[in-house]
Amino acid sequence: MDRSLVALGAPRAERADAVRNRLHLLTTAREMLATQGADKVTMDGLAERAGLGKGTVFRRFGSRAGIFHALLDDDERAFQEQVLSGPAPLGPGAAPADRLIAYGRARIAFQLGHYDIARAALDGTRPIAAGEGTISQVHIRMLLGLADLGVADLDMLAVQLTAALEGPFLLYLSAPDHADAALRVEERMAQGWEELVLRICRP
Amino acid sequence: MDRSLVALGAPRAERADAVRNRLHLLTTAREMLATQGADKVTMDGLAERAGLGKGTVFRRFGSRAGIFHALLDDDERAFQEQVLSGPAPLGPGAAPADRLIAYGRARIAFQLGHYDIARAALDGTRPIAAGEGTISQVHIRMLLGLADLGVADLDMLAVQLTAALEGPFLLYLSAPDHADAALRVEERMAQGWEELVLRICRP
Repeated sequence: MDRSLVALGAPRAERADAVRNRLHLLTTAREMLATQGADKVTMDGLAERAGLGKGTVFRRFGSRAGIFHALLDDDERAFQEQVLSGPAPLGPGAAPADRLIAYGRARIAFQLGHYDIARAALDGTRPIAAGEGTISQVHIRMLLGLADLGVADLDMLAVQLTAALEGPFLLYLSAPDHADAALRVEERMAQGWEELVLRICRP
Repeated sequence: MDRSLVALGAPRAERADAVRNRLHLLTTAREMLATQGADKVTMDGLAERAGLGKGTVFRRFGSRAGIFHALLDDDERAFQEQVLSGPAPLGPGAAPADRLIAYGRARIAFQLGHYDIARAALDGTRPIAAGEGTISQVHIRMLLGLADLGVADLDMLAVQLTAALEGPFLLYLSAPDHADAALRVEERMAQGWEELVLRICRP
Protein backbone atom coordinates (compact mmCIF):
# COMPACT_ATOMS: atom_id res chain seq x y z
CA MET A 1 0.00 0.00 0.00
CA ASP A 2 1.32 3.38 -1.01
CA ARG A 3 1.43 5.48 2.19
CA SER A 4 1.56 8.76 0.26
CA LEU A 5 -1.92 8.12 -1.13
CA VAL A 6 -3.28 7.56 2.36
CA ALA A 7 -1.58 10.73 3.56
CA LEU A 8 -3.16 12.66 0.70
CA GLY A 9 -6.54 11.04 1.26
CA ALA A 10 -7.60 12.94 4.33
CA PRO A 11 -7.38 16.51 3.00
CA ARG A 12 -8.97 15.46 -0.28
CA ALA A 13 -11.93 13.99 1.60
CA GLU A 14 -12.20 17.15 3.66
CA ARG A 15 -12.28 19.28 0.51
CA ALA A 16 -15.07 17.13 -0.92
CA ASP A 17 -16.98 17.52 2.36
CA ALA A 18 -16.42 21.26 2.24
CA VAL A 19 -17.83 21.48 -1.29
CA ARG A 20 -20.81 19.31 -0.31
CA ASN A 21 -21.47 21.43 2.79
CA ARG A 22 -21.26 24.61 0.82
CA LEU A 23 -23.71 23.40 -1.82
CA HIS A 24 -26.07 22.09 0.86
CA LEU A 25 -25.90 25.42 2.72
CA LEU A 26 -26.56 27.45 -0.44
CA THR A 27 -29.51 25.24 -1.41
CA THR A 28 -30.91 25.56 2.11
CA ALA A 29 -30.40 29.33 2.07
CA ARG A 30 -32.27 29.60 -1.26
CA GLU A 31 -35.16 27.57 0.19
CA MET A 32 -35.27 29.81 3.28
CA LEU A 33 -35.19 32.93 1.10
CA ALA A 34 -38.08 31.69 -1.04
CA THR A 35 -40.27 30.54 1.83
CA GLN A 36 -39.35 32.80 4.77
CA GLY A 37 -37.64 35.90 3.36
CA ALA A 38 -34.12 37.30 3.73
CA ASP A 39 -34.59 38.35 7.38
CA LYS A 40 -34.70 34.72 8.52
CA VAL A 41 -31.45 33.77 6.80
CA THR A 42 -29.03 34.31 9.68
CA MET A 43 -25.90 32.31 10.61
CA ASP A 44 -27.81 30.50 13.36
CA GLY A 45 -31.00 30.03 11.36
CA LEU A 46 -29.14 28.61 8.38
CA ALA A 47 -27.03 26.25 10.50
CA GLU A 48 -30.13 24.92 12.27
CA ARG A 49 -32.16 24.44 9.09
CA ALA A 50 -29.21 22.80 7.30
CA GLY A 51 -28.49 20.52 10.26
CA LEU A 52 -24.86 21.68 10.41
CA GLY A 53 -22.86 23.41 13.13
CA LYS A 54 -22.63 27.20 13.29
CA GLY A 55 -18.85 26.81 12.97
CA THR A 56 -19.29 25.22 9.55
CA VAL A 57 -21.48 28.09 8.36
CA PHE A 58 -18.92 30.55 9.70
CA ARG A 59 -16.02 28.78 7.95
CA ARG A 60 -17.86 28.71 4.61
CA PHE A 61 -19.16 32.29 4.56
CA GLY A 62 -17.44 34.31 7.30
CA SER A 63 -20.48 36.47 8.04
CA ARG A 64 -24.20 36.78 7.34
CA ALA A 65 -23.38 39.12 4.44
CA GLY A 66 -21.07 36.40 3.11
CA ILE A 67 -24.01 33.98 2.72
CA PHE A 68 -25.80 36.47 0.45
CA HIS A 69 -22.58 37.29 -1.38
CA ALA A 70 -22.24 33.60 -2.24
CA LEU A 71 -25.90 33.38 -3.32
CA LEU A 72 -25.36 36.36 -5.62
CA ASP A 73 -22.17 34.93 -7.11
CA ASP A 74 -23.77 32.19 -9.25
CA ASP A 75 -26.23 34.60 -10.84
CA GLU A 76 -23.52 37.23 -11.30
CA ARG A 77 -21.52 34.70 -13.32
CA ALA A 78 -24.50 33.96 -15.59
CA PHE A 79 -25.07 37.70 -16.01
CA GLN A 80 -21.40 38.27 -16.83
CA GLU A 81 -21.60 35.53 -19.47
CA GLN A 82 -24.36 37.46 -21.28
CA VAL A 83 -22.29 40.62 -21.21
CA LEU A 84 -19.10 38.96 -22.41
CA SER A 85 -20.52 36.79 -25.16
CA GLY A 86 -24.28 37.30 -25.50
CA PRO A 87 -25.92 39.10 -28.42
CA ALA A 88 -25.25 42.83 -29.06
CA PRO A 89 -25.83 45.49 -27.84
CA LEU A 90 -25.43 43.88 -24.37
CA GLY A 91 -22.74 41.61 -25.76
CA PRO A 92 -19.95 42.74 -28.09
CA GLY A 93 -20.62 44.27 -31.50
CA ALA A 94 -22.32 47.65 -30.92
CA ALA A 95 -21.07 51.22 -30.36
CA PRO A 96 -19.77 51.93 -26.82
CA ALA A 97 -22.61 54.32 -25.88
CA ASP A 98 -25.22 51.79 -27.06
CA ARG A 99 -23.49 49.07 -25.07
CA LEU A 100 -23.39 51.30 -21.97
CA ILE A 101 -27.13 51.92 -22.31
CA ALA A 102 -27.85 48.21 -22.85
CA TYR A 103 -25.63 47.24 -19.93
CA GLY A 104 -27.43 49.67 -17.63
CA ARG A 105 -30.83 48.36 -18.65
CA ALA A 106 -29.76 44.75 -18.05
CA ARG A 107 -28.11 45.60 -14.75
CA ILE A 108 -31.15 47.46 -13.45
CA ALA A 109 -33.32 44.41 -14.23
CA PHE A 110 -30.73 42.16 -12.52
CA GLN A 111 -30.72 44.36 -9.44
CA LEU A 112 -34.48 44.50 -9.18
CA GLY A 113 -34.53 40.71 -9.44
CA HIS A 114 -31.99 40.45 -6.61
CA TYR A 115 -33.03 43.39 -4.44
CA ASP A 116 -33.14 41.59 -1.07
CA ILE A 117 -30.05 39.47 -1.68
CA ALA A 118 -27.92 42.34 -2.97
CA ARG A 119 -28.92 44.53 -0.01
CA ALA A 120 -28.21 41.78 2.50
CA ALA A 121 -24.83 41.09 0.86
CA LEU A 122 -23.65 44.61 1.77
CA ASP A 123 -21.00 44.50 4.45
CA GLY A 124 -20.55 47.74 6.38
CA THR A 125 -16.91 46.91 7.09
CA ARG A 126 -15.65 46.57 3.52
CA PRO A 127 -16.45 47.55 -0.08
CA ILE A 128 -18.50 45.28 -2.36
CA ALA A 129 -15.40 44.05 -4.21
CA ALA A 130 -12.33 45.49 -2.57
CA GLY A 131 -9.41 45.83 -4.94
CA GLU A 132 -10.49 43.92 -8.02
CA GLY A 133 -13.57 46.01 -8.84
CA THR A 134 -17.08 44.76 -9.56
CA ILE A 135 -18.39 43.45 -12.89
CA SER A 136 -20.04 46.83 -13.46
CA GLN A 137 -16.93 48.88 -12.68
CA VAL A 138 -14.74 46.81 -14.98
CA HIS A 139 -17.22 46.72 -17.85
CA ILE A 140 -18.21 50.39 -17.67
CA ARG A 141 -14.53 51.38 -17.50
CA MET A 142 -13.79 49.31 -20.62
CA LEU A 143 -16.66 50.88 -22.57
CA LEU A 144 -15.76 54.41 -21.46
CA GLY A 145 -12.25 53.77 -22.77
CA LEU A 146 -13.67 52.83 -26.18
CA ALA A 147 -16.01 55.85 -26.27
CA ASP A 148 -13.19 58.41 -26.67
CA LEU A 149 -14.74 61.02 -24.36
CA GLY A 150 -11.76 63.24 -23.65
CA VAL A 151 -12.21 62.68 -19.89
CA ALA A 152 -8.92 62.71 -17.96
CA ASP A 153 -9.83 60.26 -15.17
CA LEU A 154 -11.82 57.40 -16.68
CA ASP A 155 -11.31 55.16 -13.63
CA MET A 156 -13.05 57.67 -11.40
CA LEU A 157 -15.82 58.25 -13.94
CA ALA A 158 -16.35 54.47 -14.09
CA VAL A 159 -16.71 54.30 -10.29
CA GLN A 160 -19.12 57.22 -10.27
CA LEU A 161 -21.26 55.79 -13.08
CA THR A 162 -21.26 52.37 -11.44
CA ALA A 163 -22.55 54.04 -8.30
CA ALA A 164 -25.17 55.95 -10.32
CA LEU A 165 -26.32 52.63 -11.78
CA GLU A 166 -26.18 50.33 -8.76
CA GLY A 167 -26.41 52.77 -5.86
CA PRO A 168 -30.10 53.68 -6.10
CA PHE A 169 -31.36 50.21 -5.12
CA LEU A 170 -28.51 49.44 -2.75
CA LEU A 171 -28.77 52.72 -0.87
CA TYR A 172 -31.76 54.95 -1.50
CA LEU A 173 -34.82 53.26 -2.98
CA SER A 174 -37.23 50.91 -1.22
CA ALA A 175 -38.21 47.65 -2.88
CA PRO A 176 -41.24 48.17 -5.15
CA ASP A 177 -44.12 46.44 -3.37
CA HIS A 178 -45.82 44.89 -6.39
CA ALA A 179 -44.97 43.77 -9.90
CA ASP A 180 -46.50 46.81 -11.66
CA ALA A 181 -44.53 49.22 -9.47
CA ALA A 182 -41.35 47.23 -10.12
CA LEU A 183 -41.89 47.51 -13.88
CA ARG A 184 -42.44 51.27 -13.61
CA VAL A 185 -39.32 51.80 -11.47
CA GLU A 186 -37.28 49.60 -13.80
CA GLU A 187 -38.41 51.64 -16.82
CA ARG A 188 -37.80 55.00 -15.07
CA MET A 189 -34.32 53.96 -14.00
CA ALA A 190 -33.46 52.62 -17.45
CA GLN A 191 -34.67 55.85 -19.09
CA GLY A 192 -32.72 57.90 -16.56
CA TRP A 193 -29.58 55.86 -17.19
CA GLU A 194 -29.93 56.28 -20.95
CA GLU A 195 -30.28 60.06 -20.58
CA LEU A 196 -27.23 60.14 -18.29
CA VAL A 197 -25.10 58.13 -20.71
CA LEU A 198 -26.18 60.22 -23.73
CA ARG A 199 -25.36 63.47 -21.92
CA ILE A 200 -21.96 62.18 -20.85
CA CYS A 201 -21.13 60.79 -24.29
CA ARG A 202 -22.27 63.66 -26.51
CA PRO A 203 -19.36 65.36 -28.24
CA MET B 1 -51.15 67.72 46.72
CA ASP B 2 -52.33 67.65 43.11
CA ARG B 3 -52.46 63.99 42.13
CA SER B 4 -52.42 64.79 38.38
CA LEU B 5 -48.92 66.26 38.73
CA VAL B 6 -47.68 63.08 40.36
CA ALA B 7 -49.30 61.03 37.61
CA LEU B 8 -47.56 63.13 34.98
CA GLY B 9 -44.26 63.06 36.84
CA ALA B 10 -43.23 59.54 36.01
CA PRO B 11 -43.22 59.69 32.19
CA ARG B 12 -41.56 63.11 32.27
CA ALA B 13 -38.74 61.75 34.44
CA GLU B 14 -38.41 58.79 32.11
CA ARG B 15 -38.06 61.10 29.10
CA ALA B 16 -35.31 63.06 30.87
CA ASP B 17 -33.59 59.76 31.66
CA ALA B 18 -33.93 58.68 28.05
CA VAL B 19 -32.33 61.89 26.80
CA ARG B 20 -29.52 61.54 29.35
CA ASN B 21 -28.94 57.89 28.41
CA ARG B 22 -28.89 58.74 24.74
CA LEU B 23 -26.35 61.52 25.21
CA HIS B 24 -24.23 59.29 27.45
CA LEU B 25 -24.36 56.45 24.91
CA LEU B 26 -23.40 58.74 22.01
CA THR B 27 -20.50 60.24 23.98
CA THR B 28 -19.32 56.77 24.92
CA ALA B 29 -19.64 55.58 21.30
CA ARG B 30 -17.55 58.56 20.11
CA GLU B 31 -14.85 57.72 22.67
CA MET B 32 -14.84 54.07 21.57
CA LEU B 33 -14.64 55.11 17.91
CA ALA B 34 -11.68 57.40 18.58
CA THR B 35 -9.74 54.96 20.73
CA GLN B 36 -10.75 51.50 19.48
CA GLY B 37 -12.22 51.91 15.98
CA ALA B 38 -15.69 51.27 14.57
CA ASP B 39 -15.39 47.45 14.78
CA LYS B 40 -15.53 47.53 18.58
CA VAL B 41 -18.70 49.61 18.71
CA THR B 42 -21.28 46.83 18.99
CA MET B 43 -24.56 46.76 20.94
CA ASP B 44 -22.91 44.65 23.69
CA GLY B 45 -19.61 46.56 23.68
CA LEU B 46 -21.34 49.93 23.95
CA ALA B 47 -23.70 48.78 26.71
CA GLU B 48 -20.80 47.43 28.75
CA ARG B 49 -18.59 50.47 28.30
CA ALA B 50 -21.48 52.84 29.08
CA GLY B 51 -22.51 50.83 32.16
CA LEU B 52 -26.07 50.46 30.86
CA GLY B 53 -28.15 47.43 29.97
CA LYS B 54 -28.22 46.04 26.44
CA GLY B 55 -31.99 46.63 26.47
CA THR B 56 -31.39 50.37 26.89
CA VAL B 57 -29.00 50.45 23.93
CA PHE B 58 -31.52 48.51 21.88
CA ARG B 59 -34.39 50.88 22.80
CA ARG B 60 -32.33 53.96 21.91
CA PHE B 61 -30.87 52.77 18.59
CA GLY B 62 -32.68 49.62 17.44
CA SER B 63 -29.59 48.08 15.86
CA ARG B 64 -25.83 48.47 15.58
CA ALA B 65 -26.35 50.49 12.38
CA GLY B 66 -28.69 52.75 14.38
CA ILE B 67 -25.84 53.76 16.71
CA PHE B 68 -23.80 55.01 13.75
CA HIS B 69 -26.85 56.62 12.18
CA ALA B 70 -27.31 58.65 15.37
CA LEU B 71 -23.61 59.57 15.46
CA LEU B 72 -23.84 60.81 11.88
CA ASP B 73 -27.00 62.82 12.55
CA ASP B 74 -25.39 65.66 14.54
CA ASP B 75 -22.71 66.25 11.93
CA GLU B 76 -25.26 65.97 9.12
CA ARG B 77 -27.23 68.79 10.71
CA ALA B 78 -24.16 71.04 10.88
CA PHE B 79 -23.37 70.19 7.25
CA GLN B 80 -26.94 70.94 6.20
CA GLU B 81 -26.71 74.32 7.97
CA GLN B 82 -23.75 75.27 5.75
CA VAL B 83 -25.66 74.28 2.64
CA LEU B 84 -28.84 76.11 3.62
CA SER B 85 -27.34 79.36 4.87
CA GLY B 86 -23.55 79.31 4.53
CA PRO B 87 -21.62 81.41 2.00
CA ALA B 88 -22.06 80.81 -1.77
CA PRO B 89 -21.43 78.77 -3.84
CA LEU B 90 -22.14 76.04 -1.25
CA GLY B 91 -24.83 78.22 0.27
CA PRO B 92 -27.40 80.20 -1.74
CA GLY B 93 -26.43 82.89 -4.24
CA ALA B 94 -24.62 81.16 -7.13
CA ALA B 95 -25.72 79.52 -10.40
CA PRO B 96 -27.24 76.01 -10.01
CA ALA B 97 -24.35 74.21 -11.78
CA ASP B 98 -21.80 76.03 -9.58
CA ARG B 99 -23.79 75.11 -6.50
CA LEU B 100 -23.98 71.47 -7.62
CA ILE B 101 -20.20 71.40 -8.05
CA ALA B 102 -19.62 73.08 -4.69
CA TYR B 103 -22.08 70.76 -2.98
CA GLY B 104 -20.33 67.70 -4.41
CA ARG B 105 -16.93 68.93 -3.26
CA ALA B 106 -18.22 69.59 0.27
CA ARG B 107 -20.05 66.27 0.41
CA ILE B 108 -17.01 64.29 -0.72
CA ALA B 109 -14.94 65.91 2.06
CA PHE B 110 -17.73 65.16 4.55
CA GLN B 111 -17.86 61.54 3.48
CA LEU B 112 -14.11 61.06 3.68
CA GLY B 113 -14.23 62.53 7.17
CA HIS B 114 -16.98 60.08 8.15
CA TYR B 115 -15.93 57.02 6.15
CA ASP B 116 -16.14 54.41 8.94
CA ILE B 117 -19.27 55.84 10.55
CA ALA B 118 -21.18 56.22 7.27
CA ARG B 119 -20.28 52.66 6.24
CA ALA B 120 -21.28 51.21 9.58
CA ALA B 121 -24.57 53.15 9.48
CA LEU B 122 -25.64 51.20 6.37
CA ASP B 123 -28.46 48.84 7.16
CA GLY B 124 -28.90 45.98 4.71
CA THR B 125 -32.60 45.76 5.49
CA ARG B 126 -33.64 49.31 4.55
CA PRO B 127 -32.54 52.34 2.51
CA ILE B 128 -30.47 55.15 4.05
CA ALA B 129 -33.48 57.45 4.41
CA ALA B 130 -36.59 55.57 3.35
CA GLY B 131 -39.32 57.86 2.07
CA GLU B 132 -38.13 61.34 2.98
CA GLY B 133 -34.89 61.26 0.93
CA THR B 134 -31.41 62.20 2.15
CA ILE B 135 -29.95 65.70 2.38
CA SER B 136 -28.10 65.05 -0.87
CA GLN B 137 -31.15 63.79 -2.78
CA VAL B 138 -33.28 66.74 -1.71
CA HIS B 139 -30.62 69.35 -2.38
CA ILE B 140 -29.47 67.94 -5.72
CA ARG B 141 -33.12 67.64 -6.84
CA MET B 142 -33.72 71.29 -5.95
CA LEU B 143 -30.65 72.50 -7.87
CA LEU B 144 -31.47 70.32 -10.91
CA GLY B 145 -34.91 71.95 -10.96
CA LEU B 146 -33.31 75.40 -11.06
CA ALA B 147 -30.83 74.39 -13.78
CA ASP B 148 -33.48 74.07 -16.52
CA LEU B 149 -31.96 70.98 -18.15
CA GLY B 150 -34.87 69.71 -20.22
CA VAL B 151 -34.72 66.34 -18.45
CA ALA B 152 -38.11 64.66 -18.07
CA ASP B 153 -37.51 62.77 -14.80
CA LEU B 154 -35.57 65.04 -12.45
CA ASP B 155 -36.41 62.91 -9.40
CA MET B 156 -34.69 59.89 -10.92
CA LEU B 157 -31.72 61.96 -12.11
CA ALA B 158 -31.38 63.32 -8.56
CA VAL B 159 -31.29 59.78 -7.13
CA GLN B 160 -28.73 58.69 -9.72
CA LEU B 161 -26.48 61.71 -9.14
CA THR B 162 -26.77 61.27 -5.37
CA ALA B 163 -25.61 57.69 -5.86
CA ALA B 164 -22.75 58.85 -8.13
CA LEU B 165 -21.67 61.26 -5.39
CA GLU B 166 -22.12 59.17 -2.25
CA GLY B 167 -21.99 55.62 -3.59
CA PRO B 168 -18.25 55.36 -4.29
CA PHE B 169 -17.22 55.52 -0.61
CA LEU B 170 -20.27 53.67 0.68
CA LEU B 171 -19.98 50.80 -1.80
CA TYR B 172 -16.83 50.53 -3.89
CA LEU B 173 -13.77 52.34 -2.56
CA SER B 174 -11.60 51.31 0.37
CA ALA B 175 -10.68 53.89 3.00
CA PRO B 176 -7.49 55.73 1.99
CA ASP B 177 -4.81 54.47 4.37
CA HIS B 178 -2.98 57.74 4.99
CA ALA B 179 -3.66 61.48 4.84
CA ASP B 180 -1.86 62.07 1.51
CA ALA B 181 -3.85 59.30 -0.20
CA ALA B 182 -7.06 60.71 1.26
CA LEU B 183 -6.29 64.15 -0.19
CA ARG B 184 -5.57 62.66 -3.60
CA VAL B 185 -8.78 60.61 -3.63
CA GLU B 186 -10.77 63.63 -2.44
CA GLU B 187 -9.35 65.76 -5.25
CA ARG B 188 -9.91 63.06 -7.91
CA MET B 189 -13.50 62.54 -6.82
CA ALA B 190 -14.19 66.27 -6.72
CA GLN B 191 -12.71 66.72 -10.22
CA GLY B 192 -14.73 63.75 -11.47
CA TRP B 193 -17.90 65.16 -9.96
CA GLU B 194 -17.27 68.56 -11.55
CA GLU B 195 -16.77 66.94 -14.96
CA LEU B 196 -19.97 64.91 -14.52
CA VAL B 197 -22.02 67.96 -13.55
CA LEU B 198 -20.64 70.08 -16.41
CA ARG B 199 -21.42 67.34 -18.94
CA ILE B 200 -24.94 66.92 -17.61
CA CYS B 201 -25.62 70.67 -17.46
CA ARG B 202 -24.20 71.76 -20.81
CA PRO B 203 -26.88 72.99 -23.17
